[in-house]
Amino acid sequence: MKNPILFYFDFSSPYGYLASLRIDAIAAQHGREVAWKPILLGAIFKASGNTLLVQQPLKGKYSMHDFARSARWFKAPYQMPSVFPIATQNAARAFYWLNDSDPALAKVLAQRLFAVYFAEGRDISSAETVIAEGKKLGVDPDKLAAALADQAIKDRLRVEVEKALELGVCGSPYTIVDGEPFWGADRLDQVDAWLKIGGW
Amino acid sequence: MKNPILFYFDFSSPYGYLASLRIDAIAAQHGREVAWKPILLGAIFKASGNTLLVQQPLKGKYSMHDFARSARWFKAPYQMPSVFPIATQNAARAFYWLNDSDPALAKVLAQRLFAVYFAEGRDISSAETVIAEGKKLGVDPDKLAAALADQAIKDRLRVEVEKALELGVCGSPYTIVDGEPFWGADRLDQVDAWLKIGGW
Repeated sequence: MKNPILFYFDFSSPYGYLASLRIDAIAAQHGREVAWKPILLGAIFKASGNTLLVQQPLKGKYSMHDFARSARWFKAPYQMPSVFPIATQNAARAFYWLNDSDPALAKVLAQRLFAVYFAEGRDISSAETVIAEGKKLGVDPDKLAAALADQAIKDRLRVEVEKALELGVCGSPYTIVDGEPFWGADRLDQVDAWLKIGGW
Repeated sequence: MKNPILFYFDFSSPYGYLASLRIDAIAAQHGREVAWKPILLGAIFKASGNTLLVQQPLKGKYSMHDFARSARWFKAPYQMPSVFPIATQNAARAFYWLNDSDPALAKVLAQRLFAVYFAEGRDISSAETVIAEGKKLGVDPDKLAAALADQAIKDRLRVEVEKALELGVCGSPYTIVDGEPFWGADRLDQVDAWLKIGGW
């Protein structure tokens, strides 16, 4: 059994959302699993010296246009959220907590949170929203609320972000296939090819 | 006759080089011409607040890896030049000067300069190198030398860079198809699709 493909993303990343819609299907075509790894782009940007695309002159206007056009290219439902970017600690912590007991459900929750934010345009930053969306999927709201306040879960996310930095993760999405890194939703065709032919 | 596709690039841009190898063929499939527009990324970065990818923590290491891997993906000869980045004023000025009298030859010179820099790894920043490469293609070395020192040609490049900024050019390559902008060598499949179906 090969190691899973590592799929790093921030829940506030439009390109992360788009890639999330395809990464498992691409992996499955090659008999591979994907480990989803939500991280905090703020910490990555702090290390890399970058700022948000949308806040940059020239690139800001282009990126807003490209988010929407890329979504149509992916044939994905999309609207620019009215609140952007957002803090995604609660979403990420909920994912890691649930992932320890039910990885399949954790991925469904992540997909749901992405859809709420980028397809419905609703802010998913608050614990209340994350808990409410979890509840719809059968996740015990009291247990999730306790988890979101648990220092161990907070530490877990911090460790995952540190691990990401060690691996060189410099943006979202950032996919690692057997040690080979691919940054961007626009590298999924290369991810597919790498899985197929093992490099070029 | 439709307006030409605008292909903005810096001669010091690896992704600009890769896109230059395909953009005309893509356009030709749809009966379209491409106007090559060398610019100076330094001026663009000054406006956008960006720095060179290779000088950024995390992204620097990734981008060096991605340059070479992208070149293999494009099946293009490539080596990381030992001097990188370089000033490309002379290359760009030579292009615009030649373009006024012989657009086809100007494009051949641009292709040659890209190849010297990224396939052979030789610095193309000096006027002497640009003139020598031009001479191999039949460009009069004395006339080119005079052009490179001509204030009118310097002004021409400055105006082209200003025009690029007005159009929102935020990186290299940056391709504009009937007003629709595509940033990156990894958007060529979308350029192709846009030309084919006129948008999505």
